[in-house]
Amino acid sequence: MRAGIVGGGIIGLSVAAELLRRGADVTVYDPAPDGTGGAWHVAAGMLAPGGESVFEFPQLERLLAASAELWPAFAADLGEVGYDTAGTLGLALTADDVAEMSREWRHQKLAPLTGSQVREYEPALSPRIRAGVHAPTELQVDPRRVIRALRATLDGRVREAAVLDLSEVDADVVVVAAGCGTAALTGLPIRPVKGQVLRLRGEPGLLRHVIDGAADGRHVYLVPRADGEIVVGATQEERTDRQPTAGGVHDLLRAALDLVPGLADHELAEVTVGHRPGTPDNAPILGTLRDNVVVAAGHHRNGILLAPITARLIADLVLTGETDPLIDDFTPGRFGCA
Amino acid sequence: MRAGIVGGGIIGLSVAAELLRRGADVTVYDPAPDGTGGAWHVAAGMLAPGGESVFEFPQLERLLAASAELWPAFAADLGEVGYDTAGTLGLALTADDVAEMSREWRHQKLAPLTGSQVREYEPALSPRIRAGVHAPTELQVDPRRVIRALRATLDGRVREAAVLDLSEVDADVVVVAAGCGTAALTGLPIRPVKGQVLRLRGEPGLLRHVIDGAADGRHVYLVPRADGEIVVGATQEERTDRQPTAGGVHDLLRAALDLVPGLADHELAEVTVGHRPGTPDNAPILGTLRDNVVVAAGHHRNGILLAPITARLIADLVLTGETDPLIDDFTPGRFGCA
Repeated sequence: MRAGIVGGGIIGLSVAAELLRRGADVTVYDPAPDGTGGAWHVAAGMLAPGGESVFEFPQLERLLAASAELWPAFAADLGEVGYDTAGTLGLALTADDVAEMSREWRHQKLAPLTGSQVREYEPALSPRIRAGVHAPTELQVDPRRVIRALRATLDGRVREAAVLDLSEVDADVVVVAAGCGTAALTGLPIRPVKGQVLRLRGEPGLLRHVIDGAADGRHVYLVPRADGEIVVGATQEERTDRQPTAGGVHDLLRAALDLVPGLADHELAEVTVGHRPGTPDNAPILGTLRDNVVVAAGHHRNGILLAPITARLIADLVLTGETDPLIDDFTPGRFGCA
Repeated sequence: MRAGIVGGGIIGLSVAAELLRRGADVTVYDPAPDGTGGAWHVAAGMLAPGGESVFEFPQLERLLAASAELWPAFAADLGEVGYDTAGTLGLALTADDVAEMSREWRHQKLAPLTGSQVREYEPALSPRIRAGVHAPTELQVDPRRVIRALRATLDGRVREAAVLDLSEVDADVVVVAAGCGTAALTGLPIRPVKGQVLRLRGEPGLLRHVIDGAADGRHVYLVPRADGEIVVGATQEERTDRQPTAGGVHDLLRAALDLVPGLADHELAEVTVGHRPGTPDNAPILGTLRDNVVVAAGHHRNGILLAPITARLIADLVLTGETDPLIDDFTPGRFGCA
């Protein structure tokens, strides 16, 4: 079985690595495999099966939960990729923020904490914070390290090449995992959703938990790495440009400083822009597009979390031709345009 | 007369160009003449003889005013360097800001304007602005273009070399114009004053005047170039590091957006850090240090504005040995440590 994977982001590489592990002959095509154009390069790496889910879409919640269960073994196979189990603190600064966040917290059945209780978890938090929750199953990983580890696994099987037409790919099965680029290759309705993300740097230890908070109506997350880097994200904009903006960067910094005032002296080390591949229902597209063409794309905000389950389900489909019931609701055909 | 100028920033190059014009044989030494380490690379280029002056130091005000008078001819000699005469709007957002800014405005004898009156000058200003002034003699120039033009004038006379000891310089007279680096070369008390500066980019025409405002206690200036770039500055920090910080960038963006909300969609194109060369009284050091060694350094926030007068006075001193009364109060000896 020769499999051609179009796209060397976290989905394409995870699928390729799984196919390789099961004995397939894989080749990954990416226009800039060592480049920084991918959403993974910008992504903070929150593994949030609850917080990032769509309430109205229980099948997606099941998929997210199933992938979260695979992460410990997936990370262990890859080695040191920053998989961290300290968990997440949900935070609300003002009374309005409490009202906004409580809906999500109730849905996740998390016990409410007072401001002083959340400061017991993280002493650096602002005394102005009204309320919060501790979500022990919302974790993080470092996507840049994941990609490096996956590339090492695929040693020599990632080819620098832009695929403009799927018929160019010489393989028994083609897997399209090209993120936003999947639209042009397949006609599927995948659109870029711009996200601006900052990386701050300071002494390690200021924060241990992922922070997922609302501050004066601004939603922000802070993902602290062991080396002192803190990823601050993210805007969600229906725009295709790659420019950080004064307003976007301001809003992220404002919310971060409102929640953790001690970040003021941290270095602003990176300002990056990426595009999540969004779909009409913002759930991924997983399944057979036509004979010998399989799609694994459109993961929107959940690409990092969904990588292990996507790899497993797509490898099953490619190697056996059978569709797991878990992906029945995510077929390319559901938008009536495939 | 062979003159060796140590330092290829705006002061060193201006002095060198003036000496060259008057027939001297000049060589400029700079460790990175095409580099971006200089304060000029970060500076916005406000030419503000009033707004930036020190009330308690009338001799400095006279020096600033004398240099402002030289700028039209200095700029004309250099060619197209962004010398712009639209003037400056001083702005105050809140009642507290009005109290703060009024002191400076009264000192400059500027007629107060209401919020709606300043919006007649600049329709993009926030309707929340309480008061302002129009300062028609506070202008701007683009320091990066000035440096390019000065380098062209000095064609071939700028040598890439780090001077570690003044005795290395083979010349009849050495002019030390090394900014913060002057301290190590001379023992003079010049310290780096960190400034963080942003460059935004958008459609030209949003702003025509320089903005010099206070917004909720945050002081900010916005310097709009004809090509759509808007320079936003600047923090003033007694620090030596070169890192932009979350707090510094936030405060600049916050104040800029408070005054001009329409900047939110502008690209955040550059985040830079520079160091003004400060002195104990934050006035420049101009004059003879010892036989055949002249100093022109420590211009703090006024290096761009003071370049033409510094060039003229230092050239006079180097070529005639005579000291103009204008620089009597700025001698290296005034700190008792030369």
